[in-house]
Amino acid sequence: MEKQLQELKQRLQEISTINGATAVLGWDQSTYMPPGGAAARGQQMAVLGRIAHEKFTDTAVGRLLDDLQPYAESLPYDHDDAALIRVTRRNYERATKVPAALLATIYAHGAATYQQWTVARPANDFASIAPALEKTIDYSRQIADCFPGYDHIADPLIDFADLGMKAESVRALFTELRAALVPIANAITSQEPADDSCLKQHFPEAQQLAFGQEIIKAYGYDFQRGRQDKTHHPFMTKFSIGDVRITTRVKEHDLSEALFSTLHEAGHALYEQGINPAYEGTPLNGGTSAGVHESQSRLWENLVGRSRTFWEHYYPKLQATFPEQLYHVPLETFYRAINKVQRSLIRTDADEVTYNLHVMIRFDLELALLEGKLAVKDLPAAWHARYESDLGLRAPDDRDGVLQDVHWYSGQVGGVFQGYTLGNIMSALFYAQALQAHPTIPAEIGAGEFGTLHGWLRENIYQHGSKFTANELVERVTGGPLTIAPYIQYLRAKYGELYQL
Amino acid sequence: MEKQLQELKQRLQEISTINGATAVLGWDQSTYMPPGGAAARGQQMAVLGRIAHEKFTDTAVGRLLDDLQPYAESLPYDHDDAALIRVTRRNYERATKVPAALLATIYAHGAATYQQWTVARPANDFASIAPALEKTIDYSRQIADCFPGYDHIADPLIDFADLGMKAESVRALFTELRAALVPIANAITSQEPADDSCLKQHFPEAQQLAFGQEIIKAYGYDFQRGRQDKTHHPFMTKFSIGDVRITTRVKEHDLSEALFSTLHEAGHALYEQGINPAYEGTPLNGGTSAGVHESQSRLWENLVGRSRTFWEHYYPKLQATFPEQLYHVPLETFYRAINKVQRSLIRTDADEVTYNLHVMIRFDLELALLEGKLAVKDLPAAWHARYESDLGLRAPDDRDGVLQDVHWYSGQVGGVFQGYTLGNIMSALFYAQALQAHPTIPAEIGAGEFGTLHGWLRENIYQHGSKFTANELVERVTGGPLTIAPYIQYLRAKYGELYQL
Repeated sequence: MEKQLQELKQRLQEISTINGATAVLGWDQSTYMPPGGAAARGQQMAVLGRIAHEKFTDTAVGRLLDDLQPYAESLPYDHDDAALIRVTRRNYERATKVPAALLATIYAHGAATYQQWTVARPANDFASIAPALEKTIDYSRQIADCFPGYDHIADPLIDFADLGMKAESVRALFTELRAALVPIANAITSQEPADDSCLKQHFPEAQQLAFGQEIIKAYGYDFQRGRQDKTHHPFMTKFSIGDVRITTRVKEHDLSEALFSTLHEAGHALYEQGINPAYEGTPLNGGTSAGVHESQSRLWENLVGRSRTFWEHYYPKLQATFPEQLYHVPLETFYRAINKVQRSLIRTDADEVTYNLHVMIRFDLELALLEGKLAVKDLPAAWHARYESDLGLRAPDDRDGVLQDVHWYSGQVGGVFQGYTLGNIMSALFYAQALQAHPTIPAEIGAGEFGTLHGWLRENIYQHGSKFTANELVERVTGGPLTIAPYIQYLRAKYGELYQL
Repeated sequence: MEKQLQELKQRLQEISTINGATAVLGWDQSTYMPPGGAAARGQQMAVLGRIAHEKFTDTAVGRLLDDLQPYAESLPYDHDDAALIRVTRRNYERATKVPAALLATIYAHGAATYQQWTVARPANDFASIAPALEKTIDYSRQIADCFPGYDHIADPLIDFADLGMKAESVRALFTELRAALVPIANAITSQEPADDSCLKQHFPEAQQLAFGQEIIKAYGYDFQRGRQDKTHHPFMTKFSIGDVRITTRVKEHDLSEALFSTLHEAGHALYEQGINPAYEGTPLNGGTSAGVHESQSRLWENLVGRSRTFWEHYYPKLQATFPEQLYHVPLETFYRAINKVQRSLIRTDADEVTYNLHVMIRFDLELALLEGKLAVKDLPAAWHARYESDLGLRAPDDRDGVLQDVHWYSGQVGGVFQGYTLGNIMSALFYAQALQAHPTIPAEIGAGEFGTLHGWLRENIYQHGSKFTANELVERVTGGPLTIAPYIQYLRAKYGELYQL
């Protein structure tokens, strides 16, 4: 067994190394690459992606996994070797069940559709991209059909991102969540909106970046094993356990843009930097699901970074950094500004309370499209109808309607949105557990110290990488299944106090 | 034939794409990578390097080349397909004749020796690294012995970098050059040294960088297909014809550092940006030799960028950029400062006149080491003896003596230094031809216009990539073999005027 395990690890190490290289190419593409580099860069990433895929789907990998199966079964479930073999087999089956030719077709179609979208959105021209979207839906169904035996056609797609979740279970959670959220949103938005003009002054870029970096350093983000650069859309990327980078974008007339995207991406990065280094070079070396990943970005961005205690410590420092702009702005005004709740049209600009309503609209429409119950030609109207019923708003056009998110125009419909809301739900669930274990955490945050919280997360979540699924993690941490209760409790407490609900 | 040619091109395209990706990894390693990324980065580059090497040395490539040989022979020498097959075969033979295991051993040895050198040099401890250097010499001999039939054991090593050159022919050129250079150097250095204190004032980094970039933009460096970043050692690197990057380093108390390294690396980049785009993805898509490459960096750095006409145009702009520092410094003072000639110990700091003396010392010592006529233990003494006889100076220690250059401590002895001086020789040779074809060039340079010169170089040198060897290029351009005459003439004219020789 030892020999086969070594060979498997060696093969996985090589594949992981190639994937790390591809990630570097992607990072450069978004940060520093000159326009002339684009064509060759696409080829470079495609060639490396193909080589890694070929190496992973090699029948020798399947044979090694078969040979190792009895060994895996002889081990406790949480033994590292058992987890390695289990997760590798899962990925191997996913990778081998989808024909390479179909994947290549979808990849090319996704890239072409994305290009079309960059034209169609500013032109407010949904009709021009509708045929491509129809194809995308068809391809997504074909992918799902590579995994027969599903209850709902979206299940395999959801499974890719959030293993163990199904359309039905997510729908049930979301229905419950919507019932709780809508009254809170209504109660808040019937009041006078918070004044956030203090955030809209001029804040020079360099100080904004330095301030955000000071915070995430205190969070525990290790700049010896990472760095921050600027991109059009902020993201986190990992080249190895020793090189986990984040990006942000700066608006000099909106303090919240760079600041909160920095805290958000740092949350993703803390997760990746905290994985057991022994998992480097294996499929265990990565966050376990979209939802759990998002739970960490949201935890550090919102539950910590938009809390009153946090700013009791950091606001004087922020005032010292921007004295002209903030000296006369009281903490309470600033705190209300960064937690302003309002009904809006754009998901990515939405606040903590209404954000999930945006996600749920997309999730439900995705399911309807895949089920064939909603035709692409009827999608814009369905979009507007849901925004009117759920958020009481109607976009003036499709640009800020059905064309607003890139996700559906990048090659997949289904499975791409639920992770955002699952992440919000789990962020509060995990945070509540951390507080229960260490009631001193809020006081520490009030002193600008994050070691206990970071340590608890590393111990209970980060170190495991992909060893456990999201459901398993939740079960291990809380002793029960995923529940929205802590999240609703968090929102009620925070916004109840803020808006005297 | 068409089918085989297509298959060959497809294979070469894939290999070239992988090599482009590896170059991105190398660029990031030197520019932005955090320290924690180093270990995995080494592996990423090694894995991609190995994959590219395996794909290139595949016997199928050899078979295709054999199949295509009659077709190549049926074509004129300068037909693109003939050149493609010729150059690919040459590279294929080089790649297949050296056993992969030997290459891997040397690569690992080179990396380890480099690490040792970074400690040994500051510690002035040649003895600690001497055993590694002995091994390097032995490995270099083993590499040479993979190519039997050489006249001198350094010939195959020289051939890698400067195809067609041999120890004997280079030695002959260098002997002739030394005989001409030494009297010029003596005549200049017997005079009062130029006052370069105007360059040693404080010049803020941002303006320095912007000024250099303005010049190279005027040279014709295309920022849509490249960019400049900062690194410890300046270099040029190419990811594709559309992405050719340069780096520099800035010293705020030495204006010449960033400025001339920018012009130098831009020269390399102009060459690579100017290659026929049809050669992308083939071995033709790169400068043809170390010497020709260096001829272009030196041409744009020295023959253009340190000329009086050039600064007649740019000096007022430089003064406007740094008025406090340069307003009261006359052009003549500045011009003499940037062309200051002095005997010095460090090659990389040397001026145009004495630089080649440094190179020749290393070249001769390399040959002696490979021949076995010089033992490693006697190298420091031999170094000092040559510096005393050729430059009239003796380094106080080995740090600024035999330990000063990284080259010998990176895995190869032999073939690594001659390109610098061949480049200087060719820079004047090519420039003289360009002037002969377009006598208006100096006047254009005096107006800050470089289009005619750039066009001539693109037409006669750049576009060809690796289609012709250095000797063939020289023959095509001048109608004769490589000669030092134009270079000596250039130095005599320029420095004769400057120092009234």
